[in-house]
Amino acid sequence: MASKDTSISMSVIRRLPRYYRFLHDLKENGVQRISSRELAQRMGLTASQIRQDLNCFGEFGQQGYGYAVDQLYNELYHILGMDDLTPAIMLGAGNLGHALINHMNFANRGVKLEGIFDDAEHLIGTDIQGITIQSTEALEEFCDRQKPQLAVLCIPKEAAPRLVKRLVKCGVTAFWNFSHYDIAMQYPDVIVENVHLGDSLMTLSHLLKREK
Amino acid sequence: MASKDTSISMSVIRRLPRYYRFLHDLKENGVQRISSRELAQRMGLTASQIRQDLNCFGEFGQQGYGYAVDQLYNELYHILGMDDLTPAIMLGAGNLGHALINHMNFANRGVKLEGIFDDAEHLIGTDIQGITIQSTEALEEFCDRQKPQLAVLCIPKEAAPRLVKRLVKCGVTAFWNFSHYDIAMQYPDVIVENVHLGDSLMTLSHLLKREK
Repeated sequence: MASKDTSISMSVIRRLPRYYRFLHDLKENGVQRISSRELAQRMGLTASQIRQDLNCFGEFGQQGYGYAVDQLYNELYHILGMDDLTPAIMLGAGNLGHALINHMNFANRGVKLEGIFDDAEHLIGTDIQGITIQSTEALEEFCDRQKPQLAVLCIPKEAAPRLVKRLVKCGVTAFWNFSHYDIAMQYPDVIVENVHLGDSLMTLSHLLKREK
Repeated sequence: MASKDTSISMSVIRRLPRYYRFLHDLKENGVQRISSRELAQRMGLTASQIRQDLNCFGEFGQQGYGYAVDQLYNELYHILGMDDLTPAIMLGAGNLGHALINHMNFANRGVKLEGIFDDAEHLIGTDIQGITIQSTEALEEFCDRQKPQLAVLCIPKEAAPRLVKRLVKCGVTAFWNFSHYDIAMQYPDVIVENVHLGDSLMTLSHLLKREK
């Protein structure tokens, strides 16, 4: 099933992984079909929003029957590219890098982590989940061979400009960015997903104070 | 300086930590004043958006002079509650919990982490950054004494419903939620900041595939 529309809004795209998670849970719990109304209730959305969102990608539900859970799950699996993993590397194998790899299953998120790079002497040569940490000196050669498209940045802000420049030159076009370096400002053509953990915590603390 | 307005939009609030970061960097680099135009350029915003955002909180800039960096930084410091840390606890001291504490400076984000709880035998009694990990059996007593207002959830989804119920009963009103449990659906009155790392990575991988 191909995408119906190439100009789907970012807010719809951002909801896709959430649909995928809910469908996965329904499937695990043996639910075979679900109405848009019931799915809406579980997800805290409206039924019409769900129908609109999913209609961006094709015709799924049937009037009076609802959605076939297995089928919709499989479609989302395909739409989210779970059947064609994106080759990726990680830069920075400190606490955060280690935790991300140990905590998350990258393959279950559509990504195949193939290399980890760090310049700390005590880390080079050790491995995380079977992937050996290499010096960033090996970056160009590795990229030339493996052609990673996505880079996870778990490096300090100061280290980011030079590394991102090298990565872009190596053909990396998507960044999962935990550093505070503003990649999109410098490279408007690459795709960036920023995760500013500190900003998120600050926002929460501020919201709590506003309540009082 | 008190807030001018109690109904400031979430998008403005979400930009505050970013302003704070940029002001911090300017201050560190010895910049004493900056025009809204120049700040806009650095942040990838428009000058009028910056003026509008900051006007929600008071009168800061001066026509023809711009913003006094030190003064604006101090105001944001106060607005974000950095001078009055929110007492907090963490639930779950696995890879992610460890990494968050070791990777981030909570106090620099307005939060004072006072307790860590986990039920894994091998973790209880060990410490992270000087805070000893306790069994969740001690939760009620601890909360009664320390009155934490914020909880960081680094626990699996399955463990969340029971723990959140206990935490809400203990008076916790804000959650930094790394689990996939939908707290806001069950407790509409608490403040929740969800961090769905997996969704973020999936979105990035999907965007990359759409480009092709």
